Amino acid sequence: MTALRLDGEVLRAIDQTLLPWRERELELTGAADVAEAIRRLAIRGAPLIGVAAGYGVALELARDPGALASACQTMLRARPTAVNLAHAVERVRRAASDVPPGRQAAAALAQARSIHAEEEAASEAIATHGAELLAGRRRILTHCNTGALAAPGRGTALGVLAELASSDQLEQVLVTESRPLLQGARLTVYELRRLGVAHELLVDGAACGVIAGGVVDAVIVGCDRVAANGDLANKVGTYGLALAARAAGIPFVVAGPTSTIDPRCPTGAQIELEERSPEEVRSVSSSAGAVPVTAPGTPCRNPAFDLTPASLITALVTERGVASPVAAESVSRLLPSPARA
Amino acid sequence: MTALRLDGEVLRAIDQTLLPWRERELELTGAADVAEAIRRLAIRGAPLIGVAAGYGVALELARDPGALASACQTMLRARPTAVNLAHAVERVRRAASDVPPGRQAAAALAQARSIHAEEEAASEAIATHGAELLAGRRRILTHCNTGALAAPGRGTALGVLAELASSDQLEQVLVTESRPLLQGARLTVYELRRLGVAHELLVDGAACGVIAGGVVDAVIVGCDRVAANGDLANKVGTYGLALAARAAGIPFVVAGPTSTIDPRCPTGAQIELEERSPEEVRSVSSSAGAVPVTAPGTPCRNPAFDLTPASLITALVTERGVASPVAAESVSRLLPSPARA
Repeated sequence: MTALRLDGEVLRAIDQTLLPWRERELELTGAADVAEAIRRLAIRGAPLIGVAAGYGVALELARDPGALASACQTMLRARPTAVNLAHAVERVRRAASDVPPGRQAAAALAQARSIHAEEEAASEAIATHGAELLAGRRRILTHCNTGALAAPGRGTALGVLAELASSDQLEQVLVTESRPLLQGARLTVYELRRLGVAHELLVDGAACGVIAGGVVDAVIVGCDRVAANGDLANKVGTYGLALAARAAGIPFVVAGPTSTIDPRCPTGAQIELEERSPEEVRSVSSSAGAVPVTAPGTPCRNPAFDLTPASLITALVTERGVASPVAAESVSRLLPSPARA
Repeated sequence: MTALRLDGEVLRAIDQTLLPWRERELELTGAADVAEAIRRLAIRGAPLIGVAAGYGVALELARDPGALASACQTMLRARPTAVNLAHAVERVRRAASDVPPGRQAAAALAQARSIHAEEEAASEAIATHGAELLAGRRRILTHCNTGALAAPGRGTALGVLAELASSDQLEQVLVTESRPLLQGARLTVYELRRLGVAHELLVDGAACGVIAGGVVDAVIVGCDRVAANGDLANKVGTYGLALAARAAGIPFVVAGPTSTIDPRCPTGAQIELEERSPEEVRSVSSSAGAVPVTAPGTPCRNPAFDLTPASLITALVTERGVASPVAAESVSRLLPSPARA
């Protein structure tokens, strides 16, 4: 299973909205296609949407040499919170702008491939650093999906768990279902099953009590955006897990590539948190498609992300090492020097 | 709408598993019927299952004068956590035992009616005390369902909200969906709509972040069992809400009749927390019935309740007044003297 792969002038992506019921591949040929797939979460996960966005701009440019600016705009509007998308679009835009018109498409594609390769390498390094950090923690709870469906390679938080499992250091993974779109129940369970890792699924509301019950040795999550001071924007439910982990005295670990760090956001307060359609709350995706779970027209709030303050995070694991405690200084040391404030 | 009413020798109960899609009334004629309805949550809510259990024993006794002991056993096995059920069964058992055989059924029925009337009065008193306590808190978050479907009268926590709304003191109720069985999405939304109270529905994972976001002035929940020291067993998700309310500096209020207090449980550690079928996590109840949300056979944990320590509870509102701070001494003062340690 590969979440995303370039095949000539087509970007092939597993439609994650259909998993685990159907394994269908989308064929995306331009920026609008890719943006739509990202918007409806057919492609998701901060690192993966960055990679897809890079390809989206490059594919569009191959079709229409004059489309650089508009392709970038299309991609940037797809989702607001994960900064990887903006980072990737900017890198591809700059690579294309730096060369003569006739070579822009090739330069954009090379840059998109390079982002892809870097994120794949980052995943491997994160798995190594994270497994070192969590050695001896045998029962680990994770949230949402942060595996091979969320990032190139084995993923971020789930990549760490896969690494621990591969060296027989893991007894069990506890997985929250991650409503509204059930990335835990649908995608993480699907990945853990394929990896052969023992797991149990929980409803989101059960997680804090299970952590308090003493059967969890650590919590690990991914990240959609990390502010310069280490504040975290991640899938709704993350903040409650961090509170429960703190109260239980177990580590709360965040894993993600440095491309998710946004040095231009001083704190979490500056991160735009996406609010998605109320229809996602009113219904649930099942093997029978989306089915209603409340009265039609019920007013809903549907924040896709919440904020966890750096003070609740035990460690931030990236491909460039681990920040712990998590604060402006330790986060800054993870960034390549030009990106530092 | 009346969740439960005695009609001659039939107990009529709305089948809450079908709401809001269908309003169907069950006709229950004996202890086994009532126990089954309680077990599958067609009748639910700590006060309501107490009332139903009292009627269950009385109806069985009317059919079979020798069935007192077995009817009590049948009821007691229905659900383990809410202590109201055990309280009610014991009261009806004692009332029947105290009279000659020929009058047992009548005595049992009179006692069951008395429990029903007391709980209805308790709901009203809770609404009054709770509304006083929460005056000025205009945006209140609640969890699960604690209204007229969970208790006689207007309910417990939701009765407080109905009282605040009736005097125009409430701007909005935020409702968590309360997976796995969606009592918030299905039942609380249904009740608030009928009451004409403005509301918004959230997935459970979103609640802590929304509380941290400053748009919630208080959290109020019901209770399935309260230990002598004030520790609370309530629907999974409650503990996380209490942590988030504490972190945000807003009140976390628990509302319920004193029949939910168990003076024989010194602390929450002695409360038996029901673990329910994994199938509830693997599927979701929708307008199309139960539909799968994960791969078949996925291993699940499904605790129905979690524990919230008394130290996180701002106030316990009962029909006999308010305990605040919540601790062994203040809880004990709420109990009628014979029940006190």
